[in-house]
Amino acid sequence: MDTTKKTIILFSGDFDRVMAALIIANGAAAMGDDVTIFCTFWGLNILRKTEKVPSDGNSKKSSLQSMFGRMMPKGTKHLGLSKMNFAGAGAPMMRRATKDAGGMSLEELFDSAREQGVRFVACTLSMDILGFKADELIDGIEFEGVAAYLGTADEANVNLFI
Amino acid sequence: MDTTKKTIILFSGDFDRVMAALIIANGAAAMGDDVTIFCTFWGLNILRKTEKVPSDGNSKKSSLQSMFGRMMPKGTKHLGLSKMNFAGAGAPMMRRATKDAGGMSLEELFDSAREQGVRFVACTLSMDILGFKADELIDGIEFEGVAAYLGTADEANVNLFI
Amino acid sequence: MDTTKKTIILFSGDFDRVMAALIIANGAAAMGDDVTIFCTFWGLNILRKTEKVPSDGNSKKSSLQSMFGRMMPKGTKHLGLSKMNFAGAGAPMMRRATKDAGGMSLEELFDSAREQGVRFVACTLSMDILGFKADELIDGIEFEGVAAYLGTADEANVNLFI
Repeated sequence: MDTTKKTIILFSGDFDRVMAALIIANGAAAMGDDVTIFCTFWGLNILRKTEKVPSDGNSKKSSLQSMFGRMMPKGTKHLGLSKMNFAGAGAPMMRRATKDAGGMSLEELFDSAREQGVRFVACTLSMDILGFKADELIDGIEFEGVAAYLGTADEANVNLFI
Repeated sequence: MDTTKKTIILFSGDFDRVMAALIIANGAAAMGDDVTIFCTFWGLNILRKTEKVPSDGNSKKSSLQSMFGRMMPKGTKHLGLSKMNFAGAGAPMMRRATKDAGGMSLEELFDSAREQGVRFVACTLSMDILGFKADELIDGIEFEGVAAYLGTADEANVNLFI
Repeated sequence: MDTTKKTIILFSGDFDRVMAALIIANGAAAMGDDVTIFCTFWGLNILRKTEKVPSDGNSKKSSLQSMFGRMMPKGTKHLGLSKMNFAGAGAPMMRRATKDAGGMSLEELFDSAREQGVRFVACTLSMDILGFKADELIDGIEFEGVAAYLGTADEANVNLFI
């Protein structure tokens, strides 16, 4: 048990929940904690490259996976709110309100977390199911399964599921 | 504090969140951990028998509870996705993609968890509110309130709310 | 590490999730635990005064914040369900079923938690973004940022994100 380790399972891809996760991660990292964000299911979307990555012969997707890929947001720019999304208008409103309040944008929180050494981990099982290939995700992340997550969580004192 | 105990409050009855809970539970159980899944609110649905159970004289439901019973899914077969549910088409798509990826189905994850000794606990307060009687839930589960949950959580080192 | 401390981040403002948080908090407090509920984003709504508070010259809101204020529920009375909300009919149904089962209402759970000494904390960053002023929130709560939350969580043995 180590009070300087924290883990977050980021299951959600909702703007507001991602924002909460990143605020906690940045806060903990600023206090010197080792923080791991384990991105699974919809949370994987924040790790996707924003540009389309041409698939090579070794990484073919099923038509279902291609559809998932087209329908889900790439990166943090196009996430919707979990509540009051107003057909997409809610997240820009929340972005605006955050900016007006002098808060960091979602992209700044993400960059800050990475600069502070927060580990971003892509859940390999979710990648297999959704058909996300490693080269479609941003650089500098790690790839792990549930066993590795549990190993990290065993060493941490705060473990959240968001 | 015991690094070999884990608890999950399964509040959600969404296909994807239940799947995440069962993957974590199976992973922890495979590593030798004692895992308790405390099913509450919508999470209770996964413990319902799929067949209709005739109510006896001692277990009458209010009309409201009868309606809850009719409207909510019985077992894991008919759960919907929390996102991209597409009026019910989303979960079958996720099932198909999981199968294509060689992953375990939700039912296989559930059976595997039970075989590995994961404790499934029905929240008695939620049962009272929703009108679920013990004989409407599957065999081999336990019935506890929040105090028992907290007692277990006090002995665990990872406690998630899903 | 202290088995008598618990923290809950209440991110959600859904009736059912708030209810779950308050049941856990009351249960833990009844067992003698120190419990902190850190209200952030939609969870802040439960701390809002139900009456309109006239804004003074020092606490002007942007038009966006005024709109947030008008659209979001004040206090616990008008929260909706996360599932089966039926355009607002779901929460009253859940309230009725809870009453029929002899359970405490959301308002009773909230009052009981406060009487038992559960600390309710308003997330200051969320307040800044949503434009909630201190005098618009109920008395007897505290105001903290993420660093204070993390400090409390470091001393607790159960930390949930709801």
